[in-house]
Amino acid sequence: MRIQQLQLASQRLRDNKIFEWFVVSVIIISALLIGARTYSIPAPVMTVIHWLDLTITLLFLFEIVVRFLATDKKTRFFRNGWNVFDTLVVVVSLIPIDNSEMALVGRLVRIFRVLRMVSIIPELRTLLNSLLRALPQLGYVVLLMFIIYYIYAAVGATFFADINPQLWSDISIAMLTLFRVMTFEDWTDVMYETMGSYPLSWIYYLSFIFLTTFAFLNMVIGIVVNVLEDEHAREREAQDEADGKASLDDLMQELRSLRQEVAELKQAAVDQPATTR
Amino acid sequence: MRIQQLQLASQRLRDNKIFEWFVVSVIIISALLIGARTYSIPAPVMTVIHWLDLTITLLFLFEIVVRFLATDKKTRFFRNGWNVFDTLVVVVSLIPIDNSEMALVGRLVRIFRVLRMVSIIPELRTLLNSLLRALPQLGYVVLLMFIIYYIYAAVGATFFADINPQLWSDISIAMLTLFRVMTFEDWTDVMYETMGSYPLSWIYYLSFIFLTTFAFLNMVIGIVVNVLEDEHAREREAQDEADGKASLDDLMQELRSLRQEVAELKQAAVDQPATTR
Amino acid sequence: MRIQQLQLASQRLRDNKIFEWFVVSVIIISALLIGARTYSIPAPVMTVIHWLDLTITLLFLFEIVVRFLATDKKTRFFRNGWNVFDTLVVVVSLIPIDNSEMALVGRLVRIFRVLRMVSIIPELRTLLNSLLRALPQLGYVVLLMFIIYYIYAAVGATFFADINPQLWSDISIAMLTLFRVMTFEDWTDVMYETMGSYPLSWIYYLSFIFLTTFAFLNMVIGIVVNVLEDEHAREREAQDEADGKASLDDLMQELRSLRQEVAELKQAAVDQPATTR
Amino acid sequence: MRIQQLQLASQRLRDNKIFEWFVVSVIIISALLIGARTYSIPAPVMTVIHWLDLTITLLFLFEIVVRFLATDKKTRFFRNGWNVFDTLVVVVSLIPIDNSEMALVGRLVRIFRVLRMVSIIPELRTLLNSLLRALPQLGYVVLLMFIIYYIYAAVGATFFADINPQLWSDISIAMLTLFRVMTFEDWTDVMYETMGSYPLSWIYYLSFIFLTTFAFLNMVIGIVVNVLEDEHAREREAQDEADGKASLDDLMQELRSLRQEVAELKQAAVDQPATTR
Repeated sequence: MRIQQLQLASQRLRDNKIFEWFVVSVIIISALLIGARTYSIPAPVMTVIHWLDLTITLLFLFEIVVRFLATDKKTRFFRNGWNVFDTLVVVVSLIPIDNSEMALVGRLVRIFRVLRMVSIIPELRTLLNSLLRALPQLGYVVLLMFIIYYIYAAVGATFFADINPQLWSDISIAMLTLFRVMTFEDWTDVMYETMGSYPLSWIYYLSFIFLTTFAFLNMVIGIVVNVLEDEHAREREAQDEADGKASLDDLMQELRSLRQEVAELKQAAVDQPATTR
Repeated sequence: MRIQQLQLASQRLRDNKIFEWFVVSVIIISALLIGARTYSIPAPVMTVIHWLDLTITLLFLFEIVVRFLATDKKTRFFRNGWNVFDTLVVVVSLIPIDNSEMALVGRLVRIFRVLRMVSIIPELRTLLNSLLRALPQLGYVVLLMFIIYYIYAAVGATFFADINPQLWSDISIAMLTLFRVMTFEDWTDVMYETMGSYPLSWIYYLSFIFLTTFAFLNMVIGIVVNVLEDEHAREREAQDEADGKASLDDLMQELRSLRQEVAELKQAAVDQPATTR
Repeated sequence: MRIQQLQLASQRLRDNKIFEWFVVSVIIISALLIGARTYSIPAPVMTVIHWLDLTITLLFLFEIVVRFLATDKKTRFFRNGWNVFDTLVVVVSLIPIDNSEMALVGRLVRIFRVLRMVSIIPELRTLLNSLLRALPQLGYVVLLMFIIYYIYAAVGATFFADINPQLWSDISIAMLTLFRVMTFEDWTDVMYETMGSYPLSWIYYLSFIFLTTFAFLNMVIGIVVNVLEDEHAREREAQDEADGKASLDDLMQELRSLRQEVAELKQAAVDQPATTR
Repeated sequence: MRIQQLQLASQRLRDNKIFEWFVVSVIIISALLIGARTYSIPAPVMTVIHWLDLTITLLFLFEIVVRFLATDKKTRFFRNGWNVFDTLVVVVSLIPIDNSEMALVGRLVRIFRVLRMVSIIPELRTLLNSLLRALPQLGYVVLLMFIIYYIYAAVGATFFADINPQLWSDISIAMLTLFRVMTFEDWTDVMYETMGSYPLSWIYYLSFIFLTTFAFLNMVIGIVVNVLEDEHAREREAQDEADGKASLDDLMQELRSLRQEVAELKQAAVDQPATTR
């Protein structure tokens, strides 16, 4: 009995608009505190921030407990990735940290609290989900691009390692250098350096730029086409319901009832002579 | 009576094509003067420019007074943002400035007079309005992007502040540095510096670049889809009016009148035997 | 009589496939010569190139004369911009040049001969025309962009001229610097310099980048929408002819002949009683 | 008989899912080995890698022999470009190399083994084919772009060769420099240098950037429109089959059978009086 009452009270609190806005503002204050900490601040203000931080952690703990109590089936609560994320962030924030190494981790976890903004605002959650859902559709293009990178990095590390070990010493560093070339960031410096030893190495860079630009363009167009198609499909459905199909169906219905009448007329024509006779 | 006559005269002047072109050319001359002032010019020419500038300010004042008098309801005049802008620019230009500090502000206000071009040419006003209207639609993507920036800037300011205070000392400077990374402007210099202390910090930069590029792409596609949809909707309406639906409706009308005739025929068939008997 | 025969012979030569290919290959050889001249070449080869160049000029002259003679109305020949361009290039090539200053102009004119490739290949001519036709449609966006540039350049020249005269001394140099900022080319160097005197000048750069990127995006989307619309219009027309409308018209025709038959039937039903009686 | 049995066994092995996955994993291990070789590795590990490499080569040889035996018409095997590529890579890998110069070529061939991933995974093969198929459609835009490059490079090599021979000495180097300008990579450094001698040379760079950006944009839009059109065509066909046309055809069928009935009715009306009389 008691547990049910607690659950009802929790649900009422969770669905309360004021409580929602309170949580959002706590998250915003938490984000501002994180920003403030990056400035050099006098000790007394630091103490205030420290206590504010503790209050926020406790408020977050309270909010998660409320949401947990409000859930009907407790085991389902942790199936939602955002709930797991929220709980983890709060739990790690609660661990008292003295060691300076761990203090950095503690600050990092506090920073990730800003992501709670995404977990709270439904529109942002939808947006992020749709962004993530778009990625796997492009799986094979990404794989192809990785193969291009891998081959060029292997070639680069094989031939250019002696020229500039900082850029080409092994395949992972060479891939980073190639990403730099793809962003056009001082790529001619990289090229001119290797052109000193291999005068034709501009072919290597230009072919790489063309291939990756072309593949990237294809990815972008892929996303655009996907998005537009989804839009069109939704639109067409809406339109079909509104007019198009319905009109054709109306015509068909009209035709069928007309045929019915003609059939009756025919029957009448067949029957009539009998009554005339 | 007099006021009405003045209003009518003002309206006639305002709607006069020659007056319109005169105002546009005054604005263009004003813009050219602003450009000329940035060159080092001999004192006598400077005097000419000074007097020209005063003339332009007075002409602008005259034009605004004409437009104000031509308005039916005076209170509505200042509800239009462009009118307020025009009035402000002219009024501030009229304030006599001697102080050198204020002189700079005076020059700034004169520069903004060029924007009057936008307020005068209706096509530019429409264009700017449509640009501004597109922005809020992208609100949530901009918010998500800001959250990504904020988290990365907080992480950057926490870990890299000691490596290069000029780029990472606090969260606002770190956000500026991240914007620089997003434009690929010497971003590898920033990365190589932090990779000296944190060899894995390339993950930080690459993940940031992927996230922001992806989000930016999504924004662009969002605009494209919105624009195309608006176009489609307008197109479909135009087409619906022109042919599609109309044809189906014609068919329906034809069918109905046919049915009417069949019904009459049936009635005739039923009535006829009576007359035959 | 003689002139007509000449015209016919010219037309036959002009429309000859072999002659066409011959002209194209002469243009290609001419382009290769232009490229070869940029290398340091020994004197004897230079002499060969010189004679080859003269031969090409004469061949071009011959080709233009043929095309001129083949034209029905001679006055129309120079109404076509490409013909004027071809004639000018050939005529200037024929002027003997000794002066070293003029020699440079002569070489420049020879380089523009490569553009004759565009005037000869119809697909390229169509492509270039469609590119040029797309430009004026974007007129107002370009004007708006110019106004943005002008205002920012005026502000930049006013405030930053003393910091770095090479980048900001007057409005035209400031516009070039702003174009550089728009291409993200070492734009942070420009910004950091002015931030030394005006710590808030990052607002100037960021707002400029946002405005111009946004306007540029709008231009691109404008072109895309225009192109897609043209495609759609052409497509819809083709489709309308092929099936959609035709089917509806077929239905209408079928319905009308049916109605005709029903009308005849009705007439028969009305007439019949008369014959029965 | 024996050969047929061998072919059947080969086909069974080739189409075996486990064998397929085995080949893919061998390719992946081969790719990892290529990556590992770019790191400085101790001698004993090197020996292991050497033997692994030999094993992989032999496995590849075995796999190709199996595929060759499984083919029905042996002559068709080498008509497929991918088969030729696979065979070449394996054969060159088998050649024993001692010379240090040739060793580099050997390593290069081993790197290209990674491309076998593309030849094995059908989705990647389709993707690459579709990328390659898109290229020729853009043939004329690429040609136009090349002409623009050629003309600008000729002008650049003519005027700027004395200013900086490293960037402008001949037409091929000038084209590379122009590609650099197009990627906005330190393009202002190139421009400021030539502006020292030719103050108006900014026109050269800006016009080049506008032309190539515009042409590139056109290429991208060309691809987008092509892709969208293909999608639309496929979509419309699918839709036509599913509903649209079918419904119109249904209506037509309904109308025709109705007409048939009316015709029969008419016949009955004509015949009936005869029987009545």
